Amino acid sequence: MRDSFHEELDRTSDQLVEMTRLAGSAMTRATTALLDADLHIAESVIAADEEIDRIQRELDDRAVDLLAMQQPVATDLRIVITSMRMSADLERMGDLARHVAKVARRRYPESAVPAALRSTLLEMGQVAERIVSKAGSVIASKDVDAAVRLEQDDDEMDRLHRQLFQALLGGQWDHGMEAAVDITLVGRYYERFADHAVSVARRVVYLVTGEWHNEYVAPDAPPAGDPVAS
Amino acid sequence: MRDSFHEELDRTSDQLVEMTRLAGSAMTRATTALLDADLHIAESVIAADEEIDRIQRELDDRAVDLLAMQQPVATDLRIVITSMRMSADLERMGDLARHVAKVARRRYPESAVPAALRSTLLEMGQVAERIVSKAGSVIASKDVDAAVRLEQDDDEMDRLHRQLFQALLGGQWDHGMEAAVDITLVGRYYERFADHAVSVARRVVYLVTGEWHNEYVAPDAPPAGDPVAS
Repeated sequence: MRDSFHEELDRTSDQLVEMTRLAGSAMTRATTALLDADLHIAESVIAADEEIDRIQRELDDRAVDLLAMQQPVATDLRIVITSMRMSADLERMGDLARHVAKVARRRYPESAVPAALRSTLLEMGQVAERIVSKAGSVIASKDVDAAVRLEQDDDEMDRLHRQLFQALLGGQWDHGMEAAVDITLVGRYYERFADHAVSVARRVVYLVTGEWHNEYVAPDAPPAGDPVAS
Repeated sequence: MRDSFHEELDRTSDQLVEMTRLAGSAMTRATTALLDADLHIAESVIAADEEIDRIQRELDDRAVDLLAMQQPVATDLRIVITSMRMSADLERMGDLARHVAKVARRRYPESAVPAALRSTLLEMGQVAERIVSKAGSVIASKDVDAAVRLEQDDDEMDRLHRQLFQALLGGQWDHGMEAAVDITLVGRYYERFADHAVSVARRVVYLVTGEWHNEYVAPDAPPAGDPVAS
């Protein structure tokens, strides 16, 4: 039987997985709102972000309580600290989904996405859903190999992000400035969403191995060949 | 005389102030690189980010050691946790300065900034420098009133950010798509830089009062009337 401290850690892990589920659902619905110019869905994504924020506050309060009352050391301490960082990543992913929804809301009843870019944005939404779902599985399983493999989805997101820039900068853009600004920002939101999912996975690697995969800080390197951010 | 635990906390505070100095210098120099198309300065900003990352790693390692060895409670625990969060904000501010420098580098030998927007970008750089310098003073002084006043600088940054959008979307843009994409991204980098400075200041308020000023999460609300992000 688990003691109360480890029961609290289990509960924290469950809530982190719940946060991945909520962030993934938010980004998927934000993508629908963006592509279909669906104001109702956009509003629901914006409103639902409060629940992600609430869970993060609860997790943070519990982490501070656990540190104060239980004074964990070694692995247990690492779990508590890492959980706080993962919840911060996931809270931010919720914000990024909300940002996408706000672009959809602002452009309603039009869609912010020109027809030629619909399939790219649709794919970006699918990759976002997949990567955060995998991050949730990694939190639950502590599977280091799966954590490392998740970076392939991030590479896929970078590839799609480059497609957006190619459309913007290829000299054929005829959708106006407002759409250009929207697509530039929205592309960045999806890219950062995937970066934070990678960060969550890397924190699991740190938890299990004590070492960071690749680098310490949250990944934010521009994709290779990115004509804009590099 | 201070015991060794509190000496370590003092040292942490000094290093956080040093991080504000480095992040401020990086953003100021990145602004110069951007406006003057100065490749040498851009490269130096990109290279110097490693030092900010190094300090963050050192602070993080020390924080984990302090939690494990000293098992602080109450205010001392709050100081250690809050320091970890502030160093994460400041590390991210360094990344954002690096992003601005990378835009300057990519557009070299041209400047990424159309002449009509030079003064707005110059001001954004000045506000960035001011707000991070004030954040450093707030870390050192623990002055709650100064922490709250710092949000005025963030309002100023939001106002300048709106100016960029007005230039982009006012129907008079004749600087091409590449400049439009650059200005959209760069504007976001400055805005996020100021957001993180506000976040640092709010963490000091939390440290002193035990309560968050305004809201818990890092501010990322779009400026009122922002035609793009809202």
